[in-house]
This record gives sequence, structure tokens and C-alpha cells, in this order.
Amino acid sequence: MTDRADRSTTPVDMSIVTDGNAQAIPDRLATEEPLEIRLRAGDETRRVAVTMRTPGHDPELAAGFLYAEGVIRSWADIGRFVVQRAADGRVLDNLIVVELTTGAMPDLSPLERHFHVTSACGVCGKTGLEALLMNRNPKIPPGPRVTADLLYSLPPKLRSAQGVFGTTGGLHAAAIFDRDGGLLALREDVGRHNALDKVIGWALSQDAVPLHDRIVLVSGRTSYEIVQKCIAAEVPVVCAVSAPSSLAVSMAREYGVTLIGFLRDSRLNVYSGPERLGGPDGPSPGRTS
Amino acid sequence: MTDRADRSTTPVDMSIVTDGNAQAIPDRLATEEPLEIRLRAGDETRRVAVTMRTPGHDPELAAGFLYAEGVIRSWADIGRFVVQRAADGRVLDNLIVVELTTGAMPDLSPLERHFHVTSACGVCGKTGLEALLMNRNPKIPPGPRVTADLLYSLPPKLRSAQGVFGTTGGLHAAAIFDRDGGLLALREDVGRHNALDKVIGWALSQDAVPLHDRIVLVSGRTSYEIVQKCIAAEVPVVCAVSAPSSLAVSMAREYGVTLIGFLRDSRLNVYSGPERLGGPDGPSPGRTS
Repeated sequence: MTDRADRSTTPVDMSIVTDGNAQAIPDRLATEEPLEIRLRAGDETRRVAVTMRTPGHDPELAAGFLYAEGVIRSWADIGRFVVQRAADGRVLDNLIVVELTTGAMPDLSPLERHFHVTSACGVCGKTGLEALLMNRNPKIPPGPRVTADLLYSLPPKLRSAQGVFGTTGGLHAAAIFDRDGGLLALREDVGRHNALDKVIGWALSQDAVPLHDRIVLVSGRTSYEIVQKCIAAEVPVVCAVSAPSSLAVSMAREYGVTLIGFLRDSRLNVYSGPERLGGPDGPSPGRTS
Repeated sequence: MTDRADRSTTPVDMSIVTDGNAQAIPDRLATEEPLEIRLRAGDETRRVAVTMRTPGHDPELAAGFLYAEGVIRSWADIGRFVVQRAADGRVLDNLIVVELTTGAMPDLSPLERHFHVTSACGVCGKTGLEALLMNRNPKIPPGPRVTADLLYSLPPKLRSAQGVFGTTGGLHAAAIFDRDGGLLALREDVGRHNALDKVIGWALSQDAVPLHDRIVLVSGRTSYEIVQKCIAAEVPVVCAVSAPSSLAVSMAREYGVTLIGFLRDSRLNVYSGPERLGGPDGPSPGRTS
């Protein structure tokens, strides 16, 4: 366990073996530790999740997770994050208690929807996109229009902002940009879903959700889970450095999200929502869906 | 939904935008769909998990998952995989029923250990490595010894075996090699934990677990979950093309696993268990743990 100020990376001694020659060196790794999230409302406290995460921005992680799961609707639903201590007074870093402003515990059945609903998919044999999402999710409204050149500029901004975390080579990143390509926030984590929860949790804390007019970029691949969280926050343009899955594309098309993959240097793939691509001077590819 | 023979990838129409010029092309993506796993024993059937996975090798995925979770001890615990059909006779591809040879439903409480045990970690503030694993896991026995040159040769073998799946750019791979670097099995999936479950499930079907004397290579990063599954199958040497997390290294050291990261071209990092590295003519780096 490192000191609290620097828990995102962990020092480790290891050896590099190059062409058969070993050299012992000190290194730093992305920290992975469990975080237990508890909800408190009135006199009741319930454990709602345990996730393996990189310590740091835990309140944002908890808020983003609870929002994506439909348990909270805004930052205002959170009264405070209650610090828990062990008997010896030590702060329990891997436990976060979210105290709600609502007097009563909200309906936690949405947390079970992944299990029950995808179970239904297994039974009916359909993908069940609608069922996989909460009914509260609307279609994403039109706009903004963005140029390919603007999108090409985002990955270098993400990489330069990653800073010291990037040195571990073990962290996923998620970032929110404005429609002009300005970086608003970036968060990192060993789990890509956690990085996205953190950055959406940041937006919640700024009262900036729904994220209409914003662009999200993730460092890796886009899965069902990534697109689902972006739909919950109503992100119109979702970009990734690597490939999407088939279900990520199906969901993006269903909910009107522009989904970009393989965004590298001066190329990108448009899988969904091409109508947002192309400014006054930019390209306007034909519809793909 | 593609035909059953080729469900691992899904055709999609998309546009490539290069230097601002759009071109519509057909593409293939890694398929992501939910799989529900049910257990049947005697007259009782229980749903035990739903995972987002790439279709293909589903019986191996189910077996590997159930083994890692401590629900089955060997392939012989499985009587058969029961095909389920919809009312119209169609096979339900996203549902697998594992019929056990045991007359009674096994204790399924191990499936809840991630939740309850990491919860305990949150309370005590410790990482709780021992608690994170099942008590049945022994330390991995000594051997085999492998040379750096042998390990350097594994990633190219993995890549060439990935074949058509590699074209989607969206699949994690996990492979088992013998101590001489011979590829025994490779499986792929949108989820890296699924790819590992599948390849360990294959080993179970060959009655080849515990995997003493074997080497596992994963295409991405190593997390707590990856190392935990390798420990359950008693894999002595675990290699990855990218970085490990802090918890992956802690667990590998605790259980005597040799953990290699950044295995690329003619270099590698040794994070745990260097005593297995170095054949008669190879390097023998100092202990790092």
C-alpha cells in the first residue's frame, strides 16, 4: 500500500530481460484494488457494488456508476460521501458510502437488470437491445456537427493529458471534449468502464449532464457497456482508438449515437450516425445505417 | 444475427474517413452477445451467470468459468450440455444448460465470494489476497524452467494463429503452450476473461488440468481476474503482451506464479517467480519478490 496521495500507481521491483540479459529495475504499475460502494438513505445502508478499480476520484466513480445504473438522476441526489474509519481511526480507502438526499432508499432493481434482462435475451434468442437499456433513455437529439480534422486531433490530446499514468502502460482512459475539441476532463483506471464512470461522474458534479454537444473518447475498444453508459449520459459522439463490438454498433444506431472507431492519426471509421460528421468544409459520408 | 456457422464476427457497413475523404466499405466486427449459463442437477435448474461474450466454444466457456469459480472440479462433473429450443424449434444460441453428473446442486456460494469477500476487504482496509481466492488453491509447484528466447517466440505464434478473428481488431486472445513453446490451444473473445475461461475449458475437456508444465499467454493486460483464473488452473508461467496491475503481481507472488509482462520482440519484464526463467544457457535474474 502506497501513501494516500499517490495510490493510483504502485512501486514494484522487476527485471527486464532484453535479448536474454536480465537487469533489475524499479517500476510503477497501475494500482488495482476493490472498491465497495454503499448507499445510505435515512437509517438504511445497502451495499450496491464492488468493483476492481484504480484508487482516485472514487466519489466520481460512485456517482457515475449510480447514474448509469439509473439509481441517481443528478449530483443533487447525493448529500455527501461519508468517510468510514477502522477502529484504529485509519480511513477505509476501499469503501465509499454515498448518502442520498432522498429520505428513502431508491428502487435498486435497476442494478439487477443486466442479469435479469440478458437472461430474458437468452430465453427468447434475441439481442433485446431495448430491454438491455433502461426505458428512461431517450434517443440522443441531433447535433453537434464535427469535422474529421477535429476528431483526428483528439487522441494526441488524450495521450498528452495522460501524463504520469501513461508511464505504467496499464491504464484505460476516458475523456470528455467540447464540440471545438477542447479537453474538459480525463480520467484513468485499470477498468475502462470505471474510467468512463469517473469522467461522467465529474460531469455530474459540474451539473453538465446530459452531455449534449460533447464528445467522449475512450482509449481502447467500445463494448456494449461503454455505449450503454454514454447513452445514459446522452453523449452524441463516442470515439474510440480501437474497434467496437457488434453490439456497441447496434446500440449506437438504435439510440442515435455517432460511433467512431480506429481513430488514429488522420483516419477514422464511422459505424453509426454519420450525419454528425462534416462541418461546413468537411466530408459528409453517406448514411451507413 | 449471422448464420450459426460464423457467429464469431458480424458484418457491418461503415465508412472510412481518411484525410477527410469518406469511403463506404463493408467490414466485420467481433460479435458481442449475452450468454446465460444455467446449472442443472437432478430436478433442479439454477441460473448462475450472464456474460457478454463472443459466440463460439460456449461449452468450454461455461466449463472454464464454473471451474474458476470452484463449482466444478473436472470435466467429469459435467454430464452433458443440454440444447434449449424456442417454441418454434429454433436453437437458443445464447443459453447454455450445464447438466451435472452429481445428483444434487453443488454449493453455489463460491459464486458470491467476489462480492462478499472484497466487501470484507473494504471494511478491514486490507487487500486480503488470501480471502480473494478460494482456500482450495495451493501454491503452484516448482518448474518448468523456460528460456527468455522461448518466451520471445510465443507472441508471433499467437498472432499467426489468430487468423480471421484478428481481422476485426476487437478480440482478446488467450493461449496455452507446452514447455517447449508448442501451441496447444488458442481461444478469442471480446472479453479477455472469457478467452481465458474458454482455453482453460478446453484443457478441462482434455483432462489436462492442473496445467503444471504449461505456459499461458494473454494478448492484453493482466488483472486480478486473469491471475486468479490461472491460479485456479495451477498455471506456473503466465505471460502478457501488456502491463500487469499491482494486484495481479501481488497475487502471482503470493501463489508462486511466474508473471511476465510486456512480452514483445526480444524483451520481457519479469514481475514474479524469476526462478523459472533461464534454461541451461539462459539468464537467471535475481529474485524480485
